Amino acid sequence: MKTSSQLVQDPSADTRSDYPKRTLSVAIIGFGTVGSSVARILIEHAPAGLRLTHILNRNFERKRGDWVPANVRWTDKIDEVLASDADIIVELIGGLDPAGDWIRRALKGSKSVVTANKQLIARSGAELISLASENGQHIAFGASVAGGIPVISGLQEGLAGDQLLKLCGILNGTCNYILSRIETAGISFEEALREAQKLGFAEADPTEDVEGVDARAKLTILASAGLRVSIKHSDIPARSISMLEPIDFEYAKLLDSTIRQISRAEKSNGQLLASVEPMLVHRSSPLASVEGGQNLVMSTGKFGGETVFAGHGAGGHPTAVAVVSDLISILRSRQVNGVALQEQGIEEVPVSADFTSRHYLRFVVKDEPGIIASLAQILCRAGINIDSVFQKPGHPRSHLPFVITLEPCPVTLVTESLLHISKLPFMVQPCVALPILD
Amino acid sequence: MKTSSQLVQDPSADTRSDYPKRTLSVAIIGFGTVGSSVARILIEHAPAGLRLTHILNRNFERKRGDWVPANVRWTDKIDEVLASDADIIVELIGGLDPAGDWIRRALKGSKSVVTANKQLIARSGAELISLASENGQHIAFGASVAGGIPVISGLQEGLAGDQLLKLCGILNGTCNYILSRIETAGISFEEALREAQKLGFAEADPTEDVEGVDARAKLTILASAGLRVSIKHSDIPARSISMLEPIDFEYAKLLDSTIRQISRAEKSNGQLLASVEPMLVHRSSPLASVEGGQNLVMSTGKFGGETVFAGHGAGGHPTAVAVVSDLISILRSRQVNGVALQEQGIEEVPVSADFTSRHYLRFVVKDEPGIIASLAQILCRAGINIDSVFQKPGHPRSHLPFVITLEPCPVTLVTESLLHISKLPFMVQPCVALPILD
Repeated sequence: MKTSSQLVQDPSADTRSDYPKRTLSVAIIGFGTVGSSVARILIEHAPAGLRLTHILNRNFERKRGDWVPANVRWTDKIDEVLASDADIIVELIGGLDPAGDWIRRALKGSKSVVTANKQLIARSGAELISLASENGQHIAFGASVAGGIPVISGLQEGLAGDQLLKLCGILNGTCNYILSRIETAGISFEEALREAQKLGFAEADPTEDVEGVDARAKLTILASAGLRVSIKHSDIPARSISMLEPIDFEYAKLLDSTIRQISRAEKSNGQLLASVEPMLVHRSSPLASVEGGQNLVMSTGKFGGETVFAGHGAGGHPTAVAVVSDLISILRSRQVNGVALQEQGIEEVPVSADFTSRHYLRFVVKDEPGIIASLAQILCRAGINIDSVFQKPGHPRSHLPFVITLEPCPVTLVTESLLHISKLPFMVQPCVALPILD
Repeated sequence: MKTSSQLVQDPSADTRSDYPKRTLSVAIIGFGTVGSSVARILIEHAPAGLRLTHILNRNFERKRGDWVPANVRWTDKIDEVLASDADIIVELIGGLDPAGDWIRRALKGSKSVVTANKQLIARSGAELISLASENGQHIAFGASVAGGIPVISGLQEGLAGDQLLKLCGILNGTCNYILSRIETAGISFEEALREAQKLGFAEADPTEDVEGVDARAKLTILASAGLRVSIKHSDIPARSISMLEPIDFEYAKLLDSTIRQISRAEKSNGQLLASVEPMLVHRSSPLASVEGGQNLVMSTGKFGGETVFAGHGAGGHPTAVAVVSDLISILRSRQVNGVALQEQGIEEVPVSADFTSRHYLRFVVKDEPGIIASLAQILCRAGINIDSVFQKPGHPRSHLPFVITLEPCPVTLVTESLLHISKLPFMVQPCVALPILD
């Protein structure tokens, strides 16, 4: 039994569609972990109406698996794929270049595109959607955010009847793994990173993940899909997780919390509040129990309240599921009608990161009388109220960590005050300031 | 930015669709909590392309709100609605009769239908989908399971690329509320139920919820949507939660677990294993932290692994969001092409409840020597291994509760052994046997 509006059409029922094909030919561009998983699903699971016809990869001779049927054409030449009768190009090489160029050429050459390329979609999504539409084609990118979790279709289809106000999630498995390890093993950020690299959970150059650039691209895509706003990905401030130390997790524990890299976006008076940064998250939040490479997205709607989507955020198979789901979605649309659909109702808005939050401030000072008084004075001058002060015993007086939590106030006020505080003579290292998620 | 295949079509782009209307007229049948929320969203949120034209309710004069525009027609006559130019009927009166009859007449009269009626869909979903299809109409029922959580579209669209093997969830908020209360307040089932009734979380006749009949209907619908199997809802065994006592939660706690009403279905060798019953759930499972009226569904796919959908399982607004999302989905399909789509690839399979599980058995006995030995002998004869024995102090010898947990074995073996055990002279009351979710 199915919601009939979401089903594959019985070919005999449609006498009006002029789209001649019942089976769409699929070309996979990039035969890495995800690409080979997509091929495996198309071959083993064999969804009706989709046929794998081409695989493009450099040095494909080395990659060729004996489980791929002999009638699949292997090549290393994009021109051959673009000139072929493939109906849909699955772009899995990642990066802006040449992926963007290849996708544009495919769309102009009357091929639809499925891609997992978050950086490209975060930057050029709107342009590529227009190009697809002009050429009567589709472009789908469900795999670009949160791997196998069907969050883009969930926001756009399943929650279409709501007015979504807020999104909040854990979108980067690498950061989540590193933070979990600092917490559970009490090791430094550097050690946790090395470990993640050794296990293949982090790249040799981890900048994109650790500095929040990866999560920011995903948040840009989610904000468009769910909040229906168009923003520049680079307008979302992204803060690194590299300044965190095991002591921060100890203090977080005192506050019945943990620390996670949180991506959040919220509509507020004609602008979009958005940020990617490490935050304190209370143990009772679903975000606190996200483990390792898992991802979780929580949406808040005006009518339906909170909805949670969670699952495997990365990995060959889960990401491949998202790709194949997009292929099926295109197949269903094509079988109904060959004309591509267009975007509508997307609003361009400015981005601000000036959330109002409680804050966690972790200082390291050379102990001397009057430290709290000096800090309190600066905070008080900015109109910020201190909520609590924690100091764990057992640290040298020359390098004394302690924590102040603040009552809710705008982030900018905190940043400003910390600038003044950084000049105080007893400060041994920069303050670690984390918003607290409420 | 949107997955273009999932977007509202720009009317100017489509010159081929012969469906003449750009705005669909909506009639709401039943103006209770959900009905008035649907009206509110259609009026306040005003999704493009949908217009509320009719509201049907008995004694509508009493219900009429001043926030409903004057051009909405109020009536208490279904014939008037069926004869009107409404394009879609939103059926929210519930129950099998007259809802089923009205829906059939609407479909035959070239109206599409959106319904939240789980009992009707669980029984007659396949027939109604065929009827819709024969008449070129749609029937959608996303609101029939898990209120505002977009799980049906998630399973059918977002996870279309996977091969789902297993579903498991908390689908009944009333049971979840009652179980939470027995656990946290240490009160009896009867007290918790009375409390739930007073607060409006349980009906005056709570049978449907407490005995698992409600959850069973929802599981039937989910199994069709996700596992693509057609089953008879009454073939799924449903067990009551009424035999549970506070002591069971104390023992569950010793096992680092809680007790929840779990609905599960799993494909296994050409049959469907399915049941609705109270189960022990480990604290680390997302199912253990579902609170009050929340719902949660976890799907397991061959390729994508576990995916979780969670949110408000009931309530006017969340359920109304699901209804309006279905309306938008029909609107989008209609604008592409007026022909309804058909179901495909649904397999009829037999249902079995013979899961293999660890088990929790709670006995109450009149204490005498040799009790464990007698029990162990019967279990051993059935080839069942005891895993652990717990006995909390502080109970009278005439009414002594204790718990045995079993290693994984087929449920039928346990049921059979319990039949023998029930005849033992020291048994004061029937054993409470709960499978343990692993």
